[in-house]
Amino acid sequence: MDADIAVVRSYFLDFQSEIVKTLEHLDGGATFSMERIETPNGGFSQPRVLVNGKILEKAAVQFTYSLGKRLPPAASATRPHLSGKSFAATAISTIVHPCNPNIPTTHLNLRMFVVDADPKVWYFGGGFDLTPYLPYEEDFVEWHKFARQACTTDEQYKVLKNQCDEYFFLPHRDECRGIGGLFFDDYVSGGFDKSFQFVVDVGKNFLDGYSSIVQRRRNTEWSLEEEDWMLVRRGRYAEFNLAIDRGTKYGIQSGRRIESVLASLPPRAKWVYGHEIPHDSPQERLMTYLNPGIDWLNLVDNSVNIEES
Amino acid sequence: MDADIAVVRSYFLDFQSEIVKTLEHLDGGATFSMERIETPNGGFSQPRVLVNGKILEKAAVQFTYSLGKRLPPAASATRPHLSGKSFAATAISTIVHPCNPNIPTTHLNLRMFVVDADPKVWYFGGGFDLTPYLPYEEDFVEWHKFARQACTTDEQYKVLKNQCDEYFFLPHRDECRGIGGLFFDDYVSGGFDKSFQFVVDVGKNFLDGYSSIVQRRRNTEWSLEEEDWMLVRRGRYAEFNLAIDRGTKYGIQSGRRIESVLASLPPRAKWVYGHEIPHDSPQERLMTYLNPGIDWLNLVDNSVNIEES
Repeated sequence: MDADIAVVRSYFLDFQSEIVKTLEHLDGGATFSMERIETPNGGFSQPRVLVNGKILEKAAVQFTYSLGKRLPPAASATRPHLSGKSFAATAISTIVHPCNPNIPTTHLNLRMFVVDADPKVWYFGGGFDLTPYLPYEEDFVEWHKFARQACTTDEQYKVLKNQCDEYFFLPHRDECRGIGGLFFDDYVSGGFDKSFQFVVDVGKNFLDGYSSIVQRRRNTEWSLEEEDWMLVRRGRYAEFNLAIDRGTKYGIQSGRRIESVLASLPPRAKWVYGHEIPHDSPQERLMTYLNPGIDWLNLVDNSVNIEES
Repeated sequence: MDADIAVVRSYFLDFQSEIVKTLEHLDGGATFSMERIETPNGGFSQPRVLVNGKILEKAAVQFTYSLGKRLPPAASATRPHLSGKSFAATAISTIVHPCNPNIPTTHLNLRMFVVDADPKVWYFGGGFDLTPYLPYEEDFVEWHKFARQACTTDEQYKVLKNQCDEYFFLPHRDECRGIGGLFFDDYVSGGFDKSFQFVVDVGKNFLDGYSSIVQRRRNTEWSLEEEDWMLVRRGRYAEFNLAIDRGTKYGIQSGRRIESVLASLPPRAKWVYGHEIPHDSPQERLMTYLNPGIDWLNLVDNSVNIEES
């Protein structure tokens, strides 16, 4: 099939409904808002947000379809010569901030660009990642098994997993935002049909992987100390999104609808000067996981500590 | 007197003690921590932080003296040809996040650079600004009277006041961070003695001005709704500091001690998707003050609403 953004857009709209339904079911109480915002040139977006659920403190599932006169340089990492050309883009993004620190925060983005060059240029981008607050190694291994499953080969998983570690990194903290997942840009591998199928598989494995973790941890009780730790870690999340993330930066600078751009920010966050992590604590153990290069699918002795020498 | 960074450094150290004493007195309970951090080349810093006071939720008063091999481009707004040269710098900064939304957040920065050019180049920079949560017009007018008092002429006040409005602006929100104050860079006006005296006057008027507001508002009770609003506004403060502020950006990129760089972040903050301000509320009135170009010292009919047409 020829590259067709209408097909992808329609899939993203359906997938938005599916994510919304799944998250509402997982929460078991709260529901998502529904807005449709149209732009004069034929683009439209559908931000859907859930707040103050029993399980989810805030979740945003956003669909966008946009037509632009000039492709921003940030929209293609490897083909700067495309910037400035007119384009169409469609994307879906998801961010979930749970109430319970036993459940990780997660993030998904899938997008397709079609640029009016001669010949036409199209590509996909996106990925997913997980930001846990407590060290459940089995969850992290499982998450990466889903990531591997979304890929065609071990090699592809490794490349996209490393790109994810690299992207979601806070240099000023010398730590990863979370335990990673997949990250890809300028993706055209094997033609449109295969690329699109890959994007569909990434979405499916994201939703299956996150659902599995939420179901496993939703009934685990937590202490105020653990919640406090989650708020401190959410401060790091805000640091990444506001100071480092290219997408947010682009959104802030380009005058996109700011509530949509910043819907990823945590509902609550804390900054504690000189925050210290107790020795031999779960928090300390979590930090050993927030490093790039951990080979989740081949942990020696089932422990990442081995990897860190 | 010749430009002498040792004199300024010594004044900044004394002034740090004075600010600390004043804020401890205003809080009436909590005390500041004391650290001294030395660098191998002879620089040192003294971050002092107070947390969980009765009046002040977090305050950071930081002194630094540093010797650098290459002046970063961000260190001089108007003289890019100096960047890359070796330099000495000394600075003092203060940030106060109160518990009580009737009391504004405030920020002061004073700094001196001496650059090893031939002949030597020195200059001051700094300023102060106020970020209120509730609309006390009399406080804002008084604050700007102190700002005017720190200046030598009406004209100087106007220029530095406008620079402050311009700098502390969130383009993605189309609002100022607060009601402003003074902002200056590459300041050498009238030689070293006069410039240094100006910097001293800025510091003095900052401390007098803020003390006056804290004393007036410290016993005013507040509602949970007002505290919630303060947390939302603090989210904007974090947005400015992380996504826009040049100083923070420089600190994050240059590998400076990150706890010091980010000590300005609010202890707690909130982000509420599509947050709506009640009609005809104090919050709505506050927003009319967060605009550039308000002529605080000549309000017509004692109301800024006049200015907005």
